Amino acid sequence: MKFTAQQIANALNGSVEGRPEVEVSTLSKIEEGKPGSISFLANPIYTKYIYDTKADIVVVNEDFKPEKPLTATLIRVKDAYLAFTSLLEIYQNSKQQKTGISPNAAVAPSAKIGEGVYIGDFVSIGENTTIGNNVKIYSNTSIGDNCKIGNDTTIYYGVKIYSETVIGNECILHGGSVIGADGFGFAPQQNTDFKKIPQIGNVILEDRVEVGANTTIDRATMGSTIIRKGVKLDNLIQIAHNVEIGENTVIASQSGVSGSTKLGKNCMVAGQVGFVGHIKIADGVKVMAQSGISKSFTKPDSLIGGSPATNLADHQRSLIYLRQIESMVKRITELENKLKEMRGE
Amino acid sequence: MKFTAQQIANALNGSVEGRPEVEVSTLSKIEEGKPGSISFLANPIYTKYIYDTKADIVVVNEDFKPEKPLTATLIRVKDAYLAFTSLLEIYQNSKQQKTGISPNAAVAPSAKIGEGVYIGDFVSIGENTTIGNNVKIYSNTSIGDNCKIGNDTTIYYGVKIYSETVIGNECILHGGSVIGADGFGFAPQQNTDFKKIPQIGNVILEDRVEVGANTTIDRATMGSTIIRKGVKLDNLIQIAHNVEIGENTVIASQSGVSGSTKLGKNCMVAGQVGFVGHIKIADGVKVMAQSGISKSFTKPDSLIGGSPATNLADHQRSLIYLRQIESMVKRITELENKLKEMRGE
Amino acid sequence: MKFTAQQIANALNGSVEGRPEVEVSTLSKIEEGKPGSISFLANPIYTKYIYDTKADIVVVNEDFKPEKPLTATLIRVKDAYLAFTSLLEIYQNSKQQKTGISPNAAVAPSAKIGEGVYIGDFVSIGENTTIGNNVKIYSNTSIGDNCKIGNDTTIYYGVKIYSETVIGNECILHGGSVIGADGFGFAPQQNTDFKKIPQIGNVILEDRVEVGANTTIDRATMGSTIIRKGVKLDNLIQIAHNVEIGENTVIASQSGVSGSTKLGKNCMVAGQVGFVGHIKIADGVKVMAQSGISKSFTKPDSLIGGSPATNLADHQRSLIYLRQIESMVKRITELENKLKEMRGE
Repeated sequence: MKFTAQQIANALNGSVEGRPEVEVSTLSKIEEGKPGSISFLANPIYTKYIYDTKADIVVVNEDFKPEKPLTATLIRVKDAYLAFTSLLEIYQNSKQQKTGISPNAAVAPSAKIGEGVYIGDFVSIGENTTIGNNVKIYSNTSIGDNCKIGNDTTIYYGVKIYSETVIGNECILHGGSVIGADGFGFAPQQNTDFKKIPQIGNVILEDRVEVGANTTIDRATMGSTIIRKGVKLDNLIQIAHNVEIGENTVIASQSGVSGSTKLGKNCMVAGQVGFVGHIKIADGVKVMAQSGISKSFTKPDSLIGGSPATNLADHQRSLIYLRQIESMVKRITELENKLKEMRGE
Repeated sequence: MKFTAQQIANALNGSVEGRPEVEVSTLSKIEEGKPGSISFLANPIYTKYIYDTKADIVVVNEDFKPEKPLTATLIRVKDAYLAFTSLLEIYQNSKQQKTGISPNAAVAPSAKIGEGVYIGDFVSIGENTTIGNNVKIYSNTSIGDNCKIGNDTTIYYGVKIYSETVIGNECILHGGSVIGADGFGFAPQQNTDFKKIPQIGNVILEDRVEVGANTTIDRATMGSTIIRKGVKLDNLIQIAHNVEIGENTVIASQSGVSGSTKLGKNCMVAGQVGFVGHIKIADGVKVMAQSGISKSFTKPDSLIGGSPATNLADHQRSLIYLRQIESMVKRITELENKLKEMRGE
Repeated sequence: MKFTAQQIANALNGSVEGRPEVEVSTLSKIEEGKPGSISFLANPIYTKYIYDTKADIVVVNEDFKPEKPLTATLIRVKDAYLAFTSLLEIYQNSKQQKTGISPNAAVAPSAKIGEGVYIGDFVSIGENTTIGNNVKIYSNTSIGDNCKIGNDTTIYYGVKIYSETVIGNECILHGGSVIGADGFGFAPQQNTDFKKIPQIGNVILEDRVEVGANTTIDRATMGSTIIRKGVKLDNLIQIAHNVEIGENTVIASQSGVSGSTKLGKNCMVAGQVGFVGHIKIADGVKVMAQSGISKSFTKPDSLIGGSPATNLADHQRSLIYLRQIESMVKRITELENKLKEMRGE
């Protein structure tokens, strides 16, 4: 499908500067712009690319002032980044949507399936499980017994959802994620063999949660492991039993949260971070990559980093001092020498 | 199913204090106790919850002395934690057990299948593979050729077991775990392209091993990667080729063990720890979270931490000194100033 | 199958020393050598094992000089390590190869399947996807629409390949790896809920790429995430959207590369390393385990380590000084005391 600059400007509530009739059929990054594509400029760092981009149209902020002549047609909008995100959505939605239930799927007789669903090949759905409307479940996914999946949720290839899991509306679960496996709980015994503690709780994902590829979220020992509304989890993350992640918190790849720890709302956690168990993190806390969080942080909106983690300012100051450690040793030695000399030692 | 306090006390070999006829149908945590549930109190930190808990029954240690009046009925036992674990087991076993072979499974003609097994939808079992009695294999799991799975082992959804893998009795493999993929071995060549070293060994899991979701255990180059009896591995762990993990050792999530390293018995390894290859760790060693183990530790029962890891006491002392580094710089500067003054510089 | 020392020597272009008629049927490590097996000695550290090994034949370098009598028959070759790797290959190739399309596979009518392929049970192949010649796809693997898989590529159990992915020739993808899931991109909005940025790009794996078990490689937001020729990725690695990994670069387990970062050719990255987004790493850079790479490193062939990473020599020197920190504090205190004494304070 092709659209003209004018058509796109109308859709984005923007104004055209250049050739309103120029047509594009795809999207590209400004530094990799191709003929027949539309791009965008939001971050000033990329401004240098706009003068030479081969993209035919560039979406820019209303107040963009070119410093050189440019060949691309501009569409001026209030927020170029959000407008382009809308274009990406329109483009993606224009692709043919999967629908229908594969004859190769195995749906238990007692399962309830909503309307407009897609269920791919080799999907197994257990007893008494409820699947909402417009849910898409891609091939080789397993869903256990007594689960509940809300409306408009997408579950990609090979996801494993254990029994009793509850998933809200408009969630996205990526390939290979495992929801509801047993928490890691063992009681030490006298003979040093461990006794497994049955994990009889479940996992609850509220609405609009996104779970990355091969991320694992364990079921609670008792009660629920809870991922609140709007949480976004990247790939290869570990969420242990009885954890609670607050609304709209975002966690980057390969981070792990140990048992019973509670993260607040609107937190941002970078990659490869580890949280010990049984701690609380306040709302809006931001955590640096590779940090190790060994205690609760109760001050909202604080920045923390390091392993063990401290206030980020303290951590960064200690990194600066660490770089001086070699010179510190030299300065101490020099002081000692001078003092010896003065004391005639 | 409902049970009275008296029935439960009889099962746990305990004594009732309160209403022996009160009935419960589920279990809960003391701080989240609900009417109709039984809870327990073992860790003194939670004692404050017992006076207000809505659980109808609480299992406590024999010597528990309430300091305030309480409404819950008590069951006094020798070890409240272990007794409650038994209740969790009874509860879990009361759920209907999966059994039978799905018509959607694909079992190779030469495979031998034991009695009382459950084989779910879309399970593929390879040639000459032997499955023991009472084994449960959940949907979308793949088991290669020439494997051997012991009795009473449970393999959850979407597990991948490569050919020649040997798994013992009473093991539990969680969703998405990968057992027996090729070790990571490449021979450098003159033209800087790498030549793959075929990995012709296998993986052996002994009895009562538990493997977490999406954990990976690579096959040996030659010989076997061995996980000894009673080992418990959490989620997203990497075990490289030719590694050996000693009996009853427990490893937390996202840790990794590099090739040919051997861990002793009864070790406890926290999360996000890394071991380099070709080292040995003595029995009973405990490793702090996020440590990097770059050499062998041969003293049994030692505590180690840090990256690179040292004796934990040394590591913690160095963390304490690190927090003084800013004041050290100030003290050095002050010393220099005083000395300059004294020397008239 | 059995082979004599003479037959093997001929295949390896080597010479026999001992009994040319001795027969072996398998391979073993020299320290675990078994009767009826052939072993090798390349690394001098293992020389001590050659005098007692039970392996009947040992492949050694041309210039190997035994210091004691030995019972094993030797085969002398130019490079014992590479020669033995060839034997491993011959051994592995001698196993029966999988072939044919399972009646339990689901191949979309519009997919194009090459010659000599193996497609296992419960493999789902999407619309307009092209599978090259001699490709092997193991059970429970999902391949989306519009993908292209080159010749002689092997895809093990339960791999998830999203739509539009392009995979070259002679690649190996291990169990549970996820190729082409959405990159982790969200636009913050005023109400603190995040808006998903559609990820319309794809993933390209060039020829001879190996991807480890449960490794995840995200599709680009726009354009392609690119893994160049000969790259080897270990297990549980995260490759984010729009990343590019240069030719023949090797990355060990549990490392992660954040969005838009570009690694050069022939880099070697150890385990549990993290790279922040939007940086460039020069060709031939080697990175120590558990490092955190927070900025670009533009000098080819440099060694880097630490978190945040620096030149490895600097990092190691700072580790040495760190070990002196306790004595530094003592030295400062002593200086202060002496100075006080001298100043009569």
